[in-house]
Amino acid sequence: MAAMNALSNPTACVLIIGNEVLSGRTQDANLKFLAMRLGELGIPVREARIVPDIAEVIVSTISEVRARFDHVFTTGGIGPTHDDITSECVAAAFGLPWEPHPVAWEKMAAAYKPGDFNAARQRMATMPRGARLIETTVSLAPGFSIGNVHVMAGVPRIMQAQFESLAPRLSCGQPVVSRAVHGSGVLEGTIAEPLAAIQKRYAVLDIGSYPYYRSGGGGVAIVAKGTDAAAAESAIAEVTSLMASLGATPVAGEPPV
Amino acid sequence: MAAMNALSNPTACVLIIGNEVLSGRTQDANLKFLAMRLGELGIPVREARIVPDIAEVIVSTISEVRARFDHVFTTGGIGPTHDDITSECVAAAFGLPWEPHPVAWEKMAAAYKPGDFNAARQRMATMPRGARLIETTVSLAPGFSIGNVHVMAGVPRIMQAQFESLAPRLSCGQPVVSRAVHGSGVLEGTIAEPLAAIQKRYAVLDIGSYPYYRSGGGGVAIVAKGTDAAAAESAIAEVTSLMASLGATPVAGEPPV
Repeated sequence: MAAMNALSNPTACVLIIGNEVLSGRTQDANLKFLAMRLGELGIPVREARIVPDIAEVIVSTISEVRARFDHVFTTGGIGPTHDDITSECVAAAFGLPWEPHPVAWEKMAAAYKPGDFNAARQRMATMPRGARLIETTVSLAPGFSIGNVHVMAGVPRIMQAQFESLAPRLSCGQPVVSRAVHGSGVLEGTIAEPLAAIQKRYAVLDIGSYPYYRSGGGGVAIVAKGTDAAAAESAIAEVTSLMASLGATPVAGEPPV
Repeated sequence: MAAMNALSNPTACVLIIGNEVLSGRTQDANLKFLAMRLGELGIPVREARIVPDIAEVIVSTISEVRARFDHVFTTGGIGPTHDDITSECVAAAFGLPWEPHPVAWEKMAAAYKPGDFNAARQRMATMPRGARLIETTVSLAPGFSIGNVHVMAGVPRIMQAQFESLAPRLSCGQPVVSRAVHGSGVLEGTIAEPLAAIQKRYAVLDIGSYPYYRSGGGGVAIVAKGTDAAAAESAIAEVTSLMASLGATPVAGEPPV
């Protein structure tokens, strides 16, 4: 638990915006990417929310989470159609005018044939006043940052490029590292009590226990995460000894997929 | 938007509990399943949250969402290890004692060899007072419902069995149905304005626009969702005509994966 509570690292919230994720049409792929990359940058994700394309919900959620976390990363809702309302909602949450961004507007206006930079596309160049663009080569329409809120596309390929464009501007913390061991035939109910004792001694780590199932049988993977690599290695060494003492053959790392 | 705001159907919130999803170790697969099944049952998911294994966060989140939504479905954190704290957090959120559930306790005690029903496993038979079991044949340890909160496992296979066991007890609404059309070469920026006009005329539907990318090119899929199947069909017929009027060859349904 301690690593999740560590005060030293900045914190992140991921906000996934879109009816399609809440209806089950679309399997979100952005949280996993952002969680891994932000962990590497020492900005661990502490919470994620998935909200529909409803203005009041988006505005109130952004208002809440931008006050609670150091960074908020949104995905989705920045295209040209009627269900793309993230940008104006972010402006409303900050109490800022939503207006043409001069650089984005000029760039997009120049890229389209005369007449094609229509009202719908103009919305993609309209942002909260003072927005800082997140530009990439994979999408003409940019993302943007305003305050501690970073607004990105929902399409994973575009979102990932936007994140990598944004990353150098983020103030990073200590990277979160991970060490793991797994043991076939190990049962969570057997290992739980001595494992809890190890967690207690390594309060700077998050030690997680994850059962896995394979056609040839299953077991348990134990993962230690935190900013202290030496502690993670030491804790996993103890878990390895524990598994061996229970008659299992522990193997370093996560189980093969 | 209107369908999301419909007052007639009960509402659901999905709460995914686990550090492993927030760290990017694990790709959540439970939201998509629950969103689709709950849509079919007329209990649309309005929001989802992913929170870490931290007691204060779980308790405060459950307290908030159980007041805001008709149903809350949690996944994760009901195993025997130290990071499995969902059950006691739900009890705390309801202000109820967390105590052995007589039926679950007896069943689990009988299933283990003498001595194997240890303190860690006993936690899986310990629940908020008054909990109603969610029993399945795939897992000895049951889920449970207390009030409007339904507590299920994080392992998808177990969660899905628990959901199907629970489903007949839920008061359902009108099923949410979906109709779609897609057109290769259609651009969101071109279709956006006439599409917004269609959405405006079908206020009972959520009409979503989703670009797709394929090796041979891309296009846009338009999806109409709501409880009124005739309206969804009619709206998609209008979108089909719109796509054809723009020179595309619209095809019914979602694009092939």
